Amino acid sequence: MKKKTQNRELLYLKIARSLEQQINNDTLKVGDKLPSIRMICRQHGVSMSTAQFAYYELEAKSLIEPRPQSGFYVSNSFRKKLAMPEVSKPENKPALKTVTDIIENSFHPASENNFTVFSRGVPAMKLLPVAKLNKGALQAIRSLPGGGTTYEPLQGNEKLRIQVARWSFSWKGNLSEKDILTTAGCMSALSYCLMAMTKRGDTIAVESPCFYGILQLAQSLGLKILELPTDPQSGVDMESLKKIVLKTKLAACIFVSNFNNPFGSLMPEEHKKESVKLLGKYNIPLIEDDIYGDLYFGEKRPTCCKSFDETGMVLLCSSFSKTLAPAYRVGWVAGGKFMNEVMKIKLFHSLSSTSITHEALGSFLETGRYEAHLRKLRKTLYTNYLQYIRVIGECFPQGTKICRPQGGLSLWVELPKSIDTIELYNLAVSKKITFSPGSMFTLQKQFGNCMRLSYGLEWNEKTENGLKVLGRLAKTAMQ
Amino acid sequence: MKKKTQNRELLYLKIARSLEQQINNDTLKVGDKLPSIRMICRQHGVSMSTAQFAYYELEAKSLIEPRPQSGFYVSNSFRKKLAMPEVSKPENKPALKTVTDIIENSFHPASENNFTVFSRGVPAMKLLPVAKLNKGALQAIRSLPGGGTTYEPLQGNEKLRIQVARWSFSWKGNLSEKDILTTAGCMSALSYCLMAMTKRGDTIAVESPCFYGILQLAQSLGLKILELPTDPQSGVDMESLKKIVLKTKLAACIFVSNFNNPFGSLMPEEHKKESVKLLGKYNIPLIEDDIYGDLYFGEKRPTCCKSFDETGMVLLCSSFSKTLAPAYRVGWVAGGKFMNEVMKIKLFHSLSSTSITHEALGSFLETGRYEAHLRKLRKTLYTNYLQYIRVIGECFPQGTKICRPQGGLSLWVELPKSIDTIELYNLAVSKKITFSPGSMFTLQKQFGNCMRLSYGLEWNEKTENGLKVLGRLAKTAMQ
Repeated sequence: MKKKTQNRELLYLKIARSLEQQINNDTLKVGDKLPSIRMICRQHGVSMSTAQFAYYELEAKSLIEPRPQSGFYVSNSFRKKLAMPEVSKPENKPALKTVTDIIENSFHPASENNFTVFSRGVPAMKLLPVAKLNKGALQAIRSLPGGGTTYEPLQGNEKLRIQVARWSFSWKGNLSEKDILTTAGCMSALSYCLMAMTKRGDTIAVESPCFYGILQLAQSLGLKILELPTDPQSGVDMESLKKIVLKTKLAACIFVSNFNNPFGSLMPEEHKKESVKLLGKYNIPLIEDDIYGDLYFGEKRPTCCKSFDETGMVLLCSSFSKTLAPAYRVGWVAGGKFMNEVMKIKLFHSLSSTSITHEALGSFLETGRYEAHLRKLRKTLYTNYLQYIRVIGECFPQGTKICRPQGGLSLWVELPKSIDTIELYNLAVSKKITFSPGSMFTLQKQFGNCMRLSYGLEWNEKTENGLKVLGRLAKTAMQ
Repeated sequence: MKKKTQNRELLYLKIARSLEQQINNDTLKVGDKLPSIRMICRQHGVSMSTAQFAYYELEAKSLIEPRPQSGFYVSNSFRKKLAMPEVSKPENKPALKTVTDIIENSFHPASENNFTVFSRGVPAMKLLPVAKLNKGALQAIRSLPGGGTTYEPLQGNEKLRIQVARWSFSWKGNLSEKDILTTAGCMSALSYCLMAMTKRGDTIAVESPCFYGILQLAQSLGLKILELPTDPQSGVDMESLKKIVLKTKLAACIFVSNFNNPFGSLMPEEHKKESVKLLGKYNIPLIEDDIYGDLYFGEKRPTCCKSFDETGMVLLCSSFSKTLAPAYRVGWVAGGKFMNEVMKIKLFHSLSSTSITHEALGSFLETGRYEAHLRKLRKTLYTNYLQYIRVIGECFPQGTKICRPQGGLSLWVELPKSIDTIELYNLAVSKKITFSPGSMFTLQKQFGNCMRLSYGLEWNEKTENGLKVLGRLAKTAMQ
């Protein structure tokens, strides 16, 4: 009985997904009539209710709309054909510039309670499995020796490492708990990797636009940063990468291969394989940040570059900050052949991890609830994303372009050239709205008319209004 | 009623303390008869039971022993006049050498459950107020928004910062919560300060011997390390410091001013004032590590260098890892005029602290239980220390010297020159005992015949046996 229900669920989602693709591909255009419910039943051999569920799903996403006594049509209100941004074209020279203070300000707005915070790339508290995590934390306090007061081994909580290792099968990885070092979140993992792999004055290569946290981290270590041309859909431009490794000595690359922040781009599997091979050939360590990998909108979990790493040159970093509990500070790194170096940096800079929260997540993962939670979270995020592009299509200025993220939490919006999003940011803050201006994501002069919006917020009237106000402000700024 | 009990407690301790000083000063020599109980009553105007309590206290510490029908005598078994080590004499040149692997090995021995771990500088779990901390942690999970899943402000938990600020009165400081940034333990605080104050190739000055964690941290940041002559009783040699600032450009100094690890030395208040003035004059930031300050054996909490810092040149780092909960990873830094720089490093390298454990300690401190816990812990540690020197006096080779720590957790033992404590370490590990060989505490060729023993362990038969075995091994090694 339970299995039957699950099958029906999968069926209606499958049907909805394939119609959605046709809408996305323009096979079904705005205003086109969809097949009748009866037709769906015949074509797919499903029950009336399954077919109806598929249409409810599409309707909930504002992709289709019913017309009385006529049937379902591809929704008119849905995206006025928002174009995609172009491949980024940063200059081919390493930058070593001081970041502006707007970054810190926008990251920590004075009072967040009344703000609509589009600037913070984490899921809203209501999207997290708080009650179940609390249970895990209480259990951790009860079960750990000394209630979690005494040091755990340097490599980290074993339960957690075993669970992370098991989960690696989902991305065609093959980690054992011995390959994993726990860290205080993904930023610590990246920090340890960079400290282990580079020294002041070295050059590293990153995507462009690139998460400002990575830029800041690298700058604080005195590194030069080379920004690589990046495609909004497929990530790092492989041809550019090939040219650059030929002429520039890189100490490391950092790629957010799955759902890059802020583009939401996804490196195709061939590019992943190719990068690993190419960088391996030139002996360049690849620090891969897979923090968004579990938040895919597609059919299945994407692989990582690490999935194709045969020589240990990939240092894979991730955390549970985007899916479970940001402030638990639970991350990890699989350091490949550099594991010992990374482990030493952890020892020197922080001794050990916080036992309670690491054990708590280990226990949570052990219950097998992570997968069900992720299914729900991904669905919510995808629906949010569709709502965002609907409102942006309706309210933002003519000529606005947006990315089509294939997962993650970030929507990259390119406004008409005449708009300066730093000025817009200041206007928005006065309306109690924050977002991340595009210039935070580069050290060069680019993206000045872009912004990143997190769709990790709860979708409600306040959020919708926030977007509408942003649109209005942008339109005013144009004039 | 309660007040009266407290007064009596204070009285008996006061009497015991003053007799103890006389014993330490050799005013009362081994074998001397102590005043009778009756005499104490008359002299101090106290009750019989108070006088008796004072003698029980001294007896528990093995300082005195009763002889039937005769009274109390200064104990014979107590220290066979162990000499003190000399002032250290490191070379006056900055070192940049790679540390040996024994450090990592000795810090994390394979299986600790069966080991007697003299190498770890934290109090044993049984000395921590685990039940009360658990209560704080449970309360944190219940009271924090989202059970502690969502980010707290960058500067850290406010409750905790307020408590740390209040506590600053105990060392004649005057911090407000705005002056304090929370960190993941004291190592993180030191790491942030060093990253903010120095860059690769800079020279910093430290005590000699110096806690190996500081040496490793500084090395991993590519710093040159100048080791300063240090007195086992009064810490950094002020004359040497004065000469060095004249001829060497220092990017920072790191002093463990109170109960330096491993010497246990205590900088006199005049030296603290003088250092702050001197370093301020040459514009050298002083990173002060006060992690042991609350673990004093004397009458009162010692001040910090920070207590005399009028210009904000002192960055004071500390944590609760030595007094409450090592694996909670709760530390803090008062960065003085460099607060913004330190805060940025925290943002770039770790985003935020672990909410649950920071709130838990905030709650614990709010209850006012810290002081009572510290009183108990200090008493235990001091008694442990006396037991250690008793056994060392009995069992270690002729010519062994030991420090007289005035607080903290570390006992520094100097064995006869012919003993190599790295060889001794390997022998000890085969007997399931670990300690920290002296060469871990320097980058130069010195302290090869020294060792650090933590007296944070529970004092029991296993611990006593561990010391006796060490003594036997050392005697064998001499031959």
